[in-house]
Amino acid sequence: MSDIKVGLIGYKFMGKAHTQAYRNTNFYFEPQAPYQLKVICGRNEKSVKSAAHTYGWESYETDWRSVIERDDIDLIDIGTPSNTHKDIAIAAAKAGKHVLTEKPMALSVSDAKEMLQAVTEAGVQHMVSFNYRRIPAIALAKRLLSEGRIGDVYHIRAHYLQDWLADPQSPFAWRLDKNVAGSGAHGDLNAHIVDLARYLVGEFAEVIGLSETFVKERPVDSDEGKRDVTVDDTTLFMARFDNGAVGSFEATRYATGRKNKKYIEINGSGGSIVFDFKSMNELQFFSNEDEEHIQGYKTILVTEPDAHDYMKAWWPPGHLIGYEHTFTHQANDLANAITREHPVYPNFEDGLRCQQVLEAVENSVKTRTWEIVEKSND
Amino acid sequence: MSDIKVGLIGYKFMGKAHTQAYRNTNFYFEPQAPYQLKVICGRNEKSVKSAAHTYGWESYETDWRSVIERDDIDLIDIGTPSNTHKDIAIAAAKAGKHVLTEKPMALSVSDAKEMLQAVTEAGVQHMVSFNYRRIPAIALAKRLLSEGRIGDVYHIRAHYLQDWLADPQSPFAWRLDKNVAGSGAHGDLNAHIVDLARYLVGEFAEVIGLSETFVKERPVDSDEGKRDVTVDDTTLFMARFDNGAVGSFEATRYATGRKNKKYIEINGSGGSIVFDFKSMNELQFFSNEDEEHIQGYKTILVTEPDAHDYMKAWWPPGHLIGYEHTFTHQANDLANAITREHPVYPNFEDGLRCQQVLEAVENSVKTRTWEIVEKSND
Amino acid sequence: MSDIKVGLIGYKFMGKAHTQAYRNTNFYFEPQAPYQLKVICGRNEKSVKSAAHTYGWESYETDWRSVIERDDIDLIDIGTPSNTHKDIAIAAAKAGKHVLTEKPMALSVSDAKEMLQAVTEAGVQHMVSFNYRRIPAIALAKRLLSEGRIGDVYHIRAHYLQDWLADPQSPFAWRLDKNVAGSGAHGDLNAHIVDLARYLVGEFAEVIGLSETFVKERPVDSDEGKRDVTVDDTTLFMARFDNGAVGSFEATRYATGRKNKKYIEINGSGGSIVFDFKSMNELQFFSNEDEEHIQGYKTILVTEPDAHDYMKAWWPPGHLIGYEHTFTHQANDLANAITREHPVYPNFEDGLRCQQVLEAVENSVKTRTWEIVEKSND
Amino acid sequence: MSDIKVGLIGYKFMGKAHTQAYRNTNFYFEPQAPYQLKVICGRNEKSVKSAAHTYGWESYETDWRSVIERDDIDLIDIGTPSNTHKDIAIAAAKAGKHVLTEKPMALSVSDAKEMLQAVTEAGVQHMVSFNYRRIPAIALAKRLLSEGRIGDVYHIRAHYLQDWLADPQSPFAWRLDKNVAGSGAHGDLNAHIVDLARYLVGEFAEVIGLSETFVKERPVDSDEGKRDVTVDDTTLFMARFDNGAVGSFEATRYATGRKNKKYIEINGSGGSIVFDFKSMNELQFFSNEDEEHIQGYKTILVTEPDAHDYMKAWWPPGHLIGYEHTFTHQANDLANAITREHPVYPNFEDGLRCQQVLEAVENSVKTRTWEIVEKSND
Repeated sequence: MSDIKVGLIGYKFMGKAHTQAYRNTNFYFEPQAPYQLKVICGRNEKSVKSAAHTYGWESYETDWRSVIERDDIDLIDIGTPSNTHKDIAIAAAKAGKHVLTEKPMALSVSDAKEMLQAVTEAGVQHMVSFNYRRIPAIALAKRLLSEGRIGDVYHIRAHYLQDWLADPQSPFAWRLDKNVAGSGAHGDLNAHIVDLARYLVGEFAEVIGLSETFVKERPVDSDEGKRDVTVDDTTLFMARFDNGAVGSFEATRYATGRKNKKYIEINGSGGSIVFDFKSMNELQFFSNEDEEHIQGYKTILVTEPDAHDYMKAWWPPGHLIGYEHTFTHQANDLANAITREHPVYPNFEDGLRCQQVLEAVENSVKTRTWEIVEKSND
Repeated sequence: MSDIKVGLIGYKFMGKAHTQAYRNTNFYFEPQAPYQLKVICGRNEKSVKSAAHTYGWESYETDWRSVIERDDIDLIDIGTPSNTHKDIAIAAAKAGKHVLTEKPMALSVSDAKEMLQAVTEAGVQHMVSFNYRRIPAIALAKRLLSEGRIGDVYHIRAHYLQDWLADPQSPFAWRLDKNVAGSGAHGDLNAHIVDLARYLVGEFAEVIGLSETFVKERPVDSDEGKRDVTVDDTTLFMARFDNGAVGSFEATRYATGRKNKKYIEINGSGGSIVFDFKSMNELQFFSNEDEEHIQGYKTILVTEPDAHDYMKAWWPPGHLIGYEHTFTHQANDLANAITREHPVYPNFEDGLRCQQVLEAVENSVKTRTWEIVEKSND
Repeated sequence: MSDIKVGLIGYKFMGKAHTQAYRNTNFYFEPQAPYQLKVICGRNEKSVKSAAHTYGWESYETDWRSVIERDDIDLIDIGTPSNTHKDIAIAAAKAGKHVLTEKPMALSVSDAKEMLQAVTEAGVQHMVSFNYRRIPAIALAKRLLSEGRIGDVYHIRAHYLQDWLADPQSPFAWRLDKNVAGSGAHGDLNAHIVDLARYLVGEFAEVIGLSETFVKERPVDSDEGKRDVTVDDTTLFMARFDNGAVGSFEATRYATGRKNKKYIEINGSGGSIVFDFKSMNELQFFSNEDEEHIQGYKTILVTEPDAHDYMKAWWPPGHLIGYEHTFTHQANDLANAITREHPVYPNFEDGLRCQQVLEAVENSVKTRTWEIVEKSND
Repeated sequence: MSDIKVGLIGYKFMGKAHTQAYRNTNFYFEPQAPYQLKVICGRNEKSVKSAAHTYGWESYETDWRSVIERDDIDLIDIGTPSNTHKDIAIAAAKAGKHVLTEKPMALSVSDAKEMLQAVTEAGVQHMVSFNYRRIPAIALAKRLLSEGRIGDVYHIRAHYLQDWLADPQSPFAWRLDKNVAGSGAHGDLNAHIVDLARYLVGEFAEVIGLSETFVKERPVDSDEGKRDVTVDDTTLFMARFDNGAVGSFEATRYATGRKNKKYIEINGSGGSIVFDFKSMNELQFFSNEDEEHIQGYKTILVTEPDAHDYMKAWWPPGHLIGYEHTFTHQANDLANAITREHPVYPNFEDGLRCQQVLEAVENSVKTRTWEIVEKSND
């Protein structure tokens, strides 16, 4: 089995996270077909050359089209800003490359549909980097739901809280410009919990949202002026699911003291599960099948090599793994899918569905009423 | 200073909780004018007579009108179901008695307005038993907000979760009949967190809600039939406040494993506070005034006699108090207000405002769009 | 069934705690033979008279001998300093009264033996107020051990941590004078966890301890001098139990920030339990009978009326009870024992055994080697 | 600046952990002189050859002497069983190589002294892999102590709890044979918390210990017989420190449900700190300099790039790192020390001191009395 030869577009935060994933997949999981770090791509030659050296890539390019044209590349990994995903993904698919893209998949539902069509027609593997699905505790949550231990789901409440804008004096940044970033907390943070809700609970039926920009203008570092903030600081929404469950979601960059709190609680007729990213190696589980005097929320340390997904590759029980290995597990699952030619999820259809939920929420903010979530791919 | 002579209408859950409050106010707080347990009232003579004996009331009555007619009563305490509050409160006010009523204050906004008018005209003390304001940790939260330690409030997220209906086979009960109970989780549970949100954050501007009845009919104990559930099993809503904050609220009886979880988190420009009733003697507090390397959520054990409201009456530091003393503290504050003739809160105006929020949510469930929260008393 | 007529010696911290226990036993548990608060006793007439009034005692006395001489008293409750326990208890027994005494039962093993002999010969009920046995979570711990869910016990680690002496400038107090207090942290705090260890794990075989007085002299409030501290600030010890388990114990008044932390963890071949007084309504439980992928420490909220001892008398599930009701439960169990004429524990034999453990630890501090724990009553 | 060329002896658990450390030091920290993975060594050629390939080493050897003889090696990293450390370390030092060894450094105090002498005479860098010092939360603990925020230390209580032997039926393993393993829980687990106690609190003065082997013989996998367990299952000890603090320590493999619990609490006159490896990215901190009404244990999320040691190399705030990066940080600190020619800790003197504490505890188990901890290097 030959290696999987990767071309990575983007070399910053996500470029670093994805690079370590390829290296560590080889190191810890020893896949049948290891990853080969062929080429990394960025527009600034000096920077990308340095990144290629530090991160261990064989070569670098400054134009993503050159990467796609190369014959020695099997997989295009897109870690660039959202507004570039569509063109790169479609070109890669047409060139017969497998495609992994960072989230959010696209700037719009219509773009996402075009991208899905392209990869489907090309018959290549396609995946969206909703990396939190690969936390072993989330994999365990999925398993408990599949085993019927939660029963019928009544509730999901999920929030993704950060605080880096809580200070009204912190300066303007490109992420606060709608033209560049597409959206604020909604696309950045709600995207993740929407994907997890679809994964764990099912499809969204209808939604209604609330968006707010608390600080309307912010100082610009380079001069003495101020600049308008054009994205949402926070977006909350309520939802109904096809299966009758109801949900409450919230994303914000103003939750002082919450550096990166991703919290999900699901209550069903048979039990409940709770996940908090602050304790990413743990899952809480309540079962009403326990005898009454010993019922309670159990904190499962999800580090058992023999019982928990992914953990055989790591350390003895009770030794924690960190954030970056959500990407490592994702890369390993993708490698297996490519090698064994079976599908991998979340794919571009999942990315589209997530986009449809986000867009319905945005619409509901404008119309001030509930919006049905579109689910056709046409 | 003469004693405060009490007539208590109702002798079940709330009757028991309020009785211990009067006894323990005298025992622990030694108020200037102690409470005198004059008369307890209930329709079933045998039961109320027994309650009078066990709880230590001097006498009993079976008609609330007889209690109000008595000259030896200063304070009428209404612990009966919601549909009786209005008549008793208005009659008591007209008779010149102070009035304490259980929540929710009334079945409708218009009833609440009539009640407020009656007590205002009579010039008596009036109070609604939103007892959670009297948790020392909530009193501390209020203090931290007043001290400016939270800064401008951006967010409140609050939920009140129970699970006693999570099993679809649990039988029908009177609380599930709209004609008797008025509403379900919304009036019972959201009422409390709405009052706390008003207390801690400020007035609601507009709301939009979602209600669901997961199990539409339930078995009746007495026969083999089933009966329709006519109240909400859960009600969630989002809110905007007059001061620009946004909020997310949820009440349910279907959160498996959450026996009585009342959770409130408030994030502001200067800090955050978190309260969870499961740890009712604690308050979490984050301040961004701390030096960066030692910032974090602090768990304050709110049991310091010299530093925390109410705690001088109790035990040494680190010794917990229980749920029932929310009522004890409330009774003590009421006694002080009566004795010193100063106002006490939450009063009937607070009760009305809470009702207006709840009713706006109910309307928004029907109209499927945002509803402005009425705030005039006319 | 006639009432149980109580004479209470002592009216301060423990007097208050025990008084509320008698009142609340009647109020919440409605025992067959309710308690009658006959007489409270203290040396300062003005203070004890005031206490009698506030707490609701029928009468007061200033000499404990007068209380014992009264014919209308069934139960003598000793809440005075330790050096008085022996004389009062023996006199009460000889007068045919039941006896409840605060802990530690006596100043020495030989005193404790005399006291045990007196109550045994008199055939009266005798009890030592190790009130923490009556926390519902501790009762549940005992049940889980009895049900075999923990298996063979390997380990107990227990500590009782306070911090009121952590500041070296805090003034001298009578509790720091060995002549008055008998001992420091050891007798005050270790006594409780030794009793719980005996209750949950079994009898101690041998011990070795370490005592330290960190601050050797402290300022005296009344003048500018200093006074020697003659008791232990902290005492730690290790133990072996008759059943092969090993244990680690620690009491201190110097654990800054630990206001009243009582922590007990027990590990056995089948499972583990953890109790922390900070969350006194909870018990943690781990069972290795759970399937491997869902093993974990479970937090049981011990508030179920139908499943947890004592809780039927209280509030709905999830409503916490406080510290003082450890005494209420104790009083109720004692009332039942008196009424039904069955034994009640911990009795004077338990008090003696606890004293024997404490004394062996004190000896080991002096000899610097392991000391066997005496267990004969002769 | 030329690379640091590494020869790694051992390729199993520690070989894997150390290899990733070298790779990730280069990847995340970009040191002046990066590590070069020259040669890995193991006795089984097939296995070590495979490891060399998976882990990315340039070459392999099957005799450690060959590694030491090579001219192209700067640093010898010893990850083999304890009984081999001495010979390899001394040979490496004599050959002028820097030496990093896994803990425990040696089988005896006298061996440790010889090793210290060898590296001192050779003038090479020497380090013992007490990797937990490199947890950012432990680095922060050290900083808070250095800043005087804890004041004078009164107490340390530390335990290291595992449970892999709690089942009496689990089979015999080489770690249970004293001839191979040297000791049981004591050398394996107490070694770590002794080092941390020295790092954070100071030098040990005297100790007394308790050791137990709960299950004296265990089934052998290969046949139907049983084999004697010759090491300790658990060792507890108490300690006095030179600075007057007292401590309590415990290591066990029988704490059912505790997979890898490493807990350290330090109480001082000014504050307290608590670390639990289960939440390795957090540190709890209590300060009595806070105003009284807001005092409490604070949970510091130790992930701030600008405020917490090591974290600039990682992810944005709130993104956790895992166990293996304790080794990465250690490798980076060692690289800096080698490059800049400054000392690095814990060095062989720290390893010796740790050994002296462990040996004093072992002696005290035999003599059943307190043992002074030797601190001379002669």
